[in-house]
Amino acid sequence: MAATRAPRLTTKGQATRRRIVEGAAEEIRERGIAGTTLDDIRARTATSKSQIFHYFPGGKEELLLAVAAREAERVLEDQEPHLSNLDTWSAWQSWRDAVVARYERQGINCPLGMLITELGRATPAAQALTSQLIGQWQAALRTGIQRLQDTGEVDPQLDADRTAAALVAAVQGGVTILMSTGRLNHLEAALDTSLTFLRTAAPNVG
Amino acid sequence: MAATRAPRLTTKGQATRRRIVEGAAEEIRERGIAGTTLDDIRARTATSKSQIFHYFPGGKEELLLAVAAREAERVLEDQEPHLSNLDTWSAWQSWRDAVVARYERQGINCPLGMLITELGRATPAAQALTSQLIGQWQAALRTGIQRLQDTGEVDPQLDADRTAAALVAAVQGGVTILMSTGRLNHLEAALDTSLTFLRTAAPNVG
Repeated sequence: MAATRAPRLTTKGQATRRRIVEGAAEEIRERGIAGTTLDDIRARTATSKSQIFHYFPGGKEELLLAVAAREAERVLEDQEPHLSNLDTWSAWQSWRDAVVARYERQGINCPLGMLITELGRATPAAQALTSQLIGQWQAALRTGIQRLQDTGEVDPQLDADRTAAALVAAVQGGVTILMSTGRLNHLEAALDTSLTFLRTAAPNVG
Repeated sequence: MAATRAPRLTTKGQATRRRIVEGAAEEIRERGIAGTTLDDIRARTATSKSQIFHYFPGGKEELLLAVAAREAERVLEDQEPHLSNLDTWSAWQSWRDAVVARYERQGINCPLGMLITELGRATPAAQALTSQLIGQWQAALRTGIQRLQDTGEVDPQLDADRTAAALVAAVQGGVTILMSTGRLNHLEAALDTSLTFLRTAAPNVG
């Protein structure tokens, strides 16, 4: 697929491309996908038509894919600095609170979800993007669980990767229900139950 | 909203309405929403235009809402007889296997999800439908957890309703990830981790 073969860019070119993607992301967050034209994005980012097509030869679809990739990065960035430092129970609790606060702010409109729907959830590009996000998220949580295992807080027998997969699913489900009902309580219950599970997975002192 | 004010129907009328809804559901499962016209549904269910508008004065949108309600019922029916009989660990395991098998069969295309997207996820009718499904699902799981508490298998201190909410979120998240990636492993990890959590929530024998 053309959208994944970006031209090699100079440092300045990378900065311009990034500026277009950031501007497009803001425009789409404000107006929605249907309400955003390439001309709106050109105006907001002060770029010419030929610049847009230089950086996104595939046109609007390729740009939307780049915006979706940026929104996927944001999902993880918004969980920092907690997500990369899950060394203690208190860090886990801070992460839990940051996740709830992020999705409470976001409410029922998920920019990434709208972009994935627009691109076609079943398309290879959208599936690759979603799989990568889930993989990175799960790896960060797995590392956190392993640190609790290293410090003797959690049973070393627990399958850290599978528990991290369950935790990503729990958050995803809570967010999906929030987007369908406008209510946060499933996300909170999912996070709290997962953390209680981790806490009760203490090593058996023999 | 007009769609929720169905006319009072005789028993025969109810049967005809149900036949139209079932036929429309089958047609939509085969052809997708965009590919299904009222004429297709009339042909499949051997009904006249005036019958369709008698039962669904709001036209296609009202019919789609009725089909979505039917698909929501199916989500729960497909988990029976397990979902209503979660008395033992073995029943819970059978339920887990039935859920995984159902979503493995269904794959990446969720009829209910497509209908909700078409109706507009944020519309009051779609939100009411989703909330009702989640509420019924959660109540059935809560009853199952309470039975394990009644028989002394699970700590009576555990908040059965909140744990059931977390379990619904875990399943929902696993299904959302399955639909985005085509892979079942998050659903399985979410279910197995939830069941392990329940099993480890044994009463403290003092």
